[in-house]
Amino acid sequence: MKVVVAILGLGISAWCAEAASPVSGVTPAMAATANQLIDLAKQENHGYELVRSLTTEVGPRLAGTEAEARARQWAVEKLQALGLQNVHVESFKVPVWMRGIEFAEIVSPFPQSLTITALGGSSSTGEQGVEAEVVVFDSLSALQQAPRRQVQGKIVFIDEIMARSRDGSGYANAVRKRRAAAYVSQQMGAVAALIRSVGTSSHRFAHAGQMRQADVGGESGVPTAALAAPDADQLMRALGYGKPVIVRLVIAPQLLPPASSGNVIGEIIGREAPQEIVLVGAHLDSWDLGTGAVDDGAGIGIILGAAKLIMEQLPKGPRRTIRVVLFGAEEVGTVGAKAYTRQHAAQLSDHIVATESDFGAGDIWRFDSRIGEDKISQMAAIVKVLERLGIAPGNNIAGGGPDLKYLREAGVPIVSLLQDGQDYFDFHHTADDTLDKVGPRSLDQNVAAYAAFMYLAAETSADFR
Amino acid sequence: MKVVVAILGLGISAWCAEAASPVSGVTPAMAATANQLIDLAKQENHGYELVRSLTTEVGPRLAGTEAEARARQWAVEKLQALGLQNVHVESFKVPVWMRGIEFAEIVSPFPQSLTITALGGSSSTGEQGVEAEVVVFDSLSALQQAPRRQVQGKIVFIDEIMARSRDGSGYANAVRKRRAAAYVSQQMGAVAALIRSVGTSSHRFAHAGQMRQADVGGESGVPTAALAAPDADQLMRALGYGKPVIVRLVIAPQLLPPASSGNVIGEIIGREAPQEIVLVGAHLDSWDLGTGAVDDGAGIGIILGAAKLIMEQLPKGPRRTIRVVLFGAEEVGTVGAKAYTRQHAAQLSDHIVATESDFGAGDIWRFDSRIGEDKISQMAAIVKVLERLGIAPGNNIAGGGPDLKYLREAGVPIVSLLQDGQDYFDFHHTADDTLDKVGPRSLDQNVAAYAAFMYLAAETSADFR
Repeated sequence: MKVVVAILGLGISAWCAEAASPVSGVTPAMAATANQLIDLAKQENHGYELVRSLTTEVGPRLAGTEAEARARQWAVEKLQALGLQNVHVESFKVPVWMRGIEFAEIVSPFPQSLTITALGGSSSTGEQGVEAEVVVFDSLSALQQAPRRQVQGKIVFIDEIMARSRDGSGYANAVRKRRAAAYVSQQMGAVAALIRSVGTSSHRFAHAGQMRQADVGGESGVPTAALAAPDADQLMRALGYGKPVIVRLVIAPQLLPPASSGNVIGEIIGREAPQEIVLVGAHLDSWDLGTGAVDDGAGIGIILGAAKLIMEQLPKGPRRTIRVVLFGAEEVGTVGAKAYTRQHAAQLSDHIVATESDFGAGDIWRFDSRIGEDKISQMAAIVKVLERLGIAPGNNIAGGGPDLKYLREAGVPIVSLLQDGQDYFDFHHTADDTLDKVGPRSLDQNVAAYAAFMYLAAETSADFR
Repeated sequence: MKVVVAILGLGISAWCAEAASPVSGVTPAMAATANQLIDLAKQENHGYELVRSLTTEVGPRLAGTEAEARARQWAVEKLQALGLQNVHVESFKVPVWMRGIEFAEIVSPFPQSLTITALGGSSSTGEQGVEAEVVVFDSLSALQQAPRRQVQGKIVFIDEIMARSRDGSGYANAVRKRRAAAYVSQQMGAVAALIRSVGTSSHRFAHAGQMRQADVGGESGVPTAALAAPDADQLMRALGYGKPVIVRLVIAPQLLPPASSGNVIGEIIGREAPQEIVLVGAHLDSWDLGTGAVDDGAGIGIILGAAKLIMEQLPKGPRRTIRVVLFGAEEVGTVGAKAYTRQHAAQLSDHIVATESDFGAGDIWRFDSRIGEDKISQMAAIVKVLERLGIAPGNNIAGGGPDLKYLREAGVPIVSLLQDGQDYFDFHHTADDTLDKVGPRSLDQNVAAYAAFMYLAAETSADFR
């Protein structure tokens, strides 16, 4: 394999210089190189090895904790070992919300415990907890429309179910209740709130997740937790008897002073246009319950695995700079993404295109973009190369990953390599997000697609700005 | 449906009296009645409704606790409501082992928490816990053969993996390590023991289970817990770096004074030979982590659902008595089964045959017996009727359910209606053993098979003793 790499490495730059097509920007030589990257990705499994390493050696890595700091150290060492240039950490501060005791039980009529987890940012019940009758709503909207007297003094339970889908589109709806339940319940005089987990698992895992941006102040909301799906079912069955159901809820998280977090950055510096940036991101932090394998160890493995292949193939680098950004503090409110946009404000106009891998390790099946209409045919030439991986052209309203929000708003061109997320929300934000949930073969397909895309976007003469 | 039942009820006894075959003991009329029971079982879902009721209204019901007492009260009310006769509780005492704090973490080289649960009967580390280097063995036998100096002062980790199988045969091997790890580790000077969960789930659930009979005295064993499979994988990966792995383990269960448990019994008294008993069992207690839906709410639902159908069809009862026994305190060492055998010692010779449903809710696929060789052809006539449910004749070395052990040893004829247990050990003894894991259609097939078997065994002229 090493021999093949070396021969290809010699061949590429000559072809590129000679055969660039002014229409598509992707020459036959570039396509050939991209295909070689794809072939190599199927033979290596360095991406998977990186996920294994991060989730084993660091494990859970909540934003602002010592564990996230260890993850940054891990990342710096890995980026340096891979041979990336300009490896550094860009620091920022993040408020730290730490989970404490958490416990819930039906007190009557059917005493038994319930599996819960406090939502990120939740206020505390104190260790003595709260005990009250449960009032159920089938959606956040139904709660919002209820008379206040129905809610006052009670524990709100929002039983809205999240739909399973390939593109994860059920999440946007479901997450509304997670973000707002605490505040709406507080406004209506409730003492606490429970939500059916924002997830699709039928196993007994409560799904964590931020209930609001960690750096937004204002009202504290009532103490709020997610119930595992079997426990939401159980609570609904208990309520079905038509008697008052009394629940005791104890959650005692702490909000600590802001602590250090950071984005870890490394580059493959462009051989001809180093100032032009193709940004590829993933996030380094995770929720605290699992080891952050699908969210977002997989993304880290995918983009670093792809970067490694490109460096092996192209010792002098592609034409433009590929900048790898491992965002910190994504889970608690894309704090790292905000910091990046702020710290690189003057450079945003140099970003040719940005993408992020943050949706697990399922096969990529579609390619969306958000670029000028006049650039679509040039992007289509790149997508054409990815077709052999089962990737179809999609639309031009790509969302990009969560960490691309501010870049997108600033007008940076965005693409999304959409992964199959049918089972992503079975694991995402739960204790069950562990390495065994990452499929090595699917990860290889992702590495192949990212390697080909990163190379082509950095090599093509097309400009997507 | 009620009309059909009444008509059938009138027809049966006349047919039975006329057409009994001296060879098989199963007349065409009996076969027709059994087939009607099977048809009705597919239309009703009372068995499932009973599982729903028990797991919702009582939930977890550990032997000797107030929750198990509520389960007995539930059972007495249900048996009476179903119209069974001679409904009563036969009490006995059982030691009560109560789970306390449980927590484990890798202290170094890769700090992170591990998902564990203490094994039933485990001694306590005290709340301060123990901290020591881990020494791994791939089986209980490997531990037994190791030099003492390799184990002394360490935390033993037995990583033996349980095989998934339709008949659950992987359990017998796997459970050896659960029962013995604490004692073997103690003999060799270890400070604590961890085992890979006795289960087949890849989700992050630690499987509980008794490490020895609760009423056996002697050495206490070292504190011992099961690791969830992803955590056993993680510990193996950490050990793979070749550095010492230090784990801190805190488990603080308590052994309480013996408390009341009991078997709940009800009968369909035989119209001609009431002293002859067809015993059908399931167990009422469960482990404390889940709601005991597959283990053994399903069994309770199956046998009571079957009893209900027989009573509706046969207002005067079958020829012999069908005795339903809902055993208490099975999980902590078949304590209820022992009590039953002791309390009914003088009556054991009147037991024509005994069976138990205690392997979840999977489809029944095979019928085994343990009866005299000269009785096999008579039992075959019963099995013939079950063929339409996809049930095949098996062997004559049936184990019966766990609660039949002492009856079997006393020479009572035993049959096993073997369920498909491919996924049973994914849920068994875990927090994930909840109602949604019970398939209503499979439960109906079980009710159909039990109803047909119970009726035929109680009606046939054949004697299996």
